Amino acid sequence: MVSYIGTERLRALVAARGPAHFLQALAQEIAADYRRWEAFEKTPRLASHSPVGVIELMPASDGRLYSFKYVNGHPKNTAAGRLTVTAFGVLAEVATGYPRLLAEMTFVTALRTAAISALAAQHLARADARSMALIGNGAQSEFQALAFHALVGVRELRLYDSDPRATAKLRANLERLGLEGLVIRGCSSIEEAVRGADIVTTVTADKRNALILTPSMVEPGMHLNAVGGDCPGKTELDKAILMRPDVHIVVEFEPQARIEGEIQQLPAGSPVTELTEVLTGARPGRTHASEVTIFDSVGFALNDFASLRYLERLDREIAGGEVIDLIPTLEDPKDLWGGLLPARARVRGLEQAVA
Amino acid sequence: MVSYIGTERLRALVAARGPAHFLQALAQEIAADYRRWEAFEKTPRLASHSPVGVIELMPASDGRLYSFKYVNGHPKNTAAGRLTVTAFGVLAEVATGYPRLLAEMTFVTALRTAAISALAAQHLARADARSMALIGNGAQSEFQALAFHALVGVRELRLYDSDPRATAKLRANLERLGLEGLVIRGCSSIEEAVRGADIVTTVTADKRNALILTPSMVEPGMHLNAVGGDCPGKTELDKAILMRPDVHIVVEFEPQARIEGEIQQLPAGSPVTELTEVLTGARPGRTHASEVTIFDSVGFALNDFASLRYLERLDREIAGGEVIDLIPTLEDPKDLWGGLLPARARVRGLEQAVA
Repeated sequence: MVSYIGTERLRALVAARGPAHFLQALAQEIAADYRRWEAFEKTPRLASHSPVGVIELMPASDGRLYSFKYVNGHPKNTAAGRLTVTAFGVLAEVATGYPRLLAEMTFVTALRTAAISALAAQHLARADARSMALIGNGAQSEFQALAFHALVGVRELRLYDSDPRATAKLRANLERLGLEGLVIRGCSSIEEAVRGADIVTTVTADKRNALILTPSMVEPGMHLNAVGGDCPGKTELDKAILMRPDVHIVVEFEPQARIEGEIQQLPAGSPVTELTEVLTGARPGRTHASEVTIFDSVGFALNDFASLRYLERLDREIAGGEVIDLIPTLEDPKDLWGGLLPARARVRGLEQAVA
Repeated sequence: MVSYIGTERLRALVAARGPAHFLQALAQEIAADYRRWEAFEKTPRLASHSPVGVIELMPASDGRLYSFKYVNGHPKNTAAGRLTVTAFGVLAEVATGYPRLLAEMTFVTALRTAAISALAAQHLARADARSMALIGNGAQSEFQALAFHALVGVRELRLYDSDPRATAKLRANLERLGLEGLVIRGCSSIEEAVRGADIVTTVTADKRNALILTPSMVEPGMHLNAVGGDCPGKTELDKAILMRPDVHIVVEFEPQARIEGEIQQLPAGSPVTELTEVLTGARPGRTHASEVTIFDSVGFALNDFASLRYLERLDREIAGGEVIDLIPTLEDPKDLWGGLLPARARVRGLEQAVA
């Protein structure tokens, strides 16, 4: 039998642990895997494009466990009441090839994206960073806000979205959460939101080379958490920001970030640091207070691998887990046909064999 | 919600339809898709190898539906009471990216492999073929036997396996099925089984370049259904058989068969026919009674696509289908965070909003 974490079970797991603790533990799990970076087989995602969207398979393996995530991206879905992104994932044993967990990952993808953003900011933002501009107040924004409150110590949020309804939704959700000491300010422009902020998180959905942040907005010492630019032709930062002499760009997996990240705008040899180097201490995170740091996040399969492993552990710890019969359990593994007969016929067959 | 066909439901569907009718309908579904070959995006499978086995993802799409199959191959699994091959698959909508069916495919892979073998034999074996040698009596053999009885009219089976217990298991399962007019003969050598047979099916598990069939065994007019040779370094036919001047080799998808099939032993330009050409009539199947025909089957993602579509239709026709909450259904697709709160908290949130 295969463990199953559907959306209702995932809701129960997050509620049981509490969202902040869930994000904290998830960030630790991701960090642990990035520290053993060399153990992983890193495969590019396998994408199937259509005029309206993309369906991707994202595998990863450390030689002991194998995972993959199915994820789609269909920007026009929301107009019909559907989600832009849905996802699910599987964790399997390399030694046997048997899947052992199937889990929803629509919610988990948002959680792990926020967790790794906050993890990177712990090493890249100034230690005294307390204010964050949150540009793009859509489906991902609450997750980012909560992760930066819980893991980075952000206490002031400046919200901006081209759609005021998105900001109203975010504000209402955050107020309902009642996060300790958090001041929330709605802003009427990106400039207003960004001015004087310690951290700027861009998480917009525009599918083009957008200029969410322009060079004049970026101040010395800022940390930019660039989440929304995550596929070819979809970026959020002006190229000139990436080319500042005082900039330090950190990516998850360089070959993928060169294609999908903000750095698709840069020449191939431009200097970037991989997150694993920062987490292992091989290279520094922030080196001085006035440096501009950028986490150019696109979402790597390792993040999902770590998330599935965390989910599996949590599922075992908290009562109420489910299993599904996705894989047959056979009395005789060499007798596949015998295992296909319905239970009653199998019993009849046994009776005949005995008689 | 996503429709779910687990192993118990699959057993019920096969029992409700009857295995022979199930195979017949599956072969028709596969044939229909091979006839519209050009409509498909054909992607190579994405494999993750380890010292003990392989885990693969096999996607396919016709621009309207997308499918993938997860399948492993671990030859040493049976020693520990596990299956060598397990599989499951997903059918999704290209327009929205939403998955709509998750199905077990351990049984389905065996069924669809037998269905396409019989489909190819309908066009490649002599019309009067009634006897078949079945070399390799393992997990796949009952499926092949049943498909060739039901779809090709085979009435004599000559069984051989290096392990007599495998042959005893196959014979017992076939006798229990009570197939109309079928004569079953156990043979003590491959030569004995093959001599005078109209069709030879090789479905052995040996993971090397084996010589199951040698040139002297092959008689004019035979159809060879080569199922077991299906990955680099794993073949069943002597290369000299493939190079006979009177041979006609048919494959599923040439670029994949060149890597995984019997024809990996041949130079790149050697003449082969794709099954779609035979099924559309673009090229002939068997051209004369003494021709030696070979179906060099390796298993293509299109076979799984067609199988999932057939399963979905059957699941809707036959009462008792299940759904799982793999994908969230949200009141507001732009409010992912709101959808993550457990049902009780969502109600509380609504009450607050109303109050």
